[in-house]
Amino acid sequence: MKTHAIFYHAGCPVCVEAERQVALALDPARYEVEVVHLGEHSPRVAEAEQTGVKSVPALVIGGAPFHINFGAALSELQP
Amino acid sequence: MKTHAIFYHAGCPVCVEAERQVALALDPARYEVEVVHLGEHSPRVAEAEQTGVKSVPALVIGGAPFHINFGAALSELQP
Repeated sequence: MKTHAIFYHAGCPVCVEAERQVALALDPARYEVEVVHLGEHSPRVAEAEQTGVKSVPALVIGGAPFHINFGAALSELQP
Repeated sequence: MKTHAIFYHAGCPVCVEAERQVALALDPARYEVEVVHLGEHSPRVAEAEQTGVKSVPALVIGGAPFHINFGAALSELQP
């Protein structure tokens, strides 16, 4: 069974680069990557927050949050 | 030809988790990942710095630095 990974972003340039270079670089044989734009799906900000995400872009793998560089604080994306 | 990725770390717990969950999660069909412990190979601190690495753990993919969470500042690892 593949590990579920969620890439949270807000469409910022830092986010786009992290998505292209890191999130989409994960091994498709082992990981299923879901990409979530928090600006367009603001109800999911709470979900990201509960996982420990503080800023975007962030990649959550197996429930653990990995913040990749810094695009925007999650608090700026509150609905 | 595979893309060269370098994972810089300093053996810290944050580094170990990022290595296991992110660096080693890259697709082996597309990426060749080199793992560099800057505490043990301090001459490579300058190389990391030139690539734009500010802290570890960091993953450099195709020449672009991606800082993953925060373990230690590169300045603390200067030889």
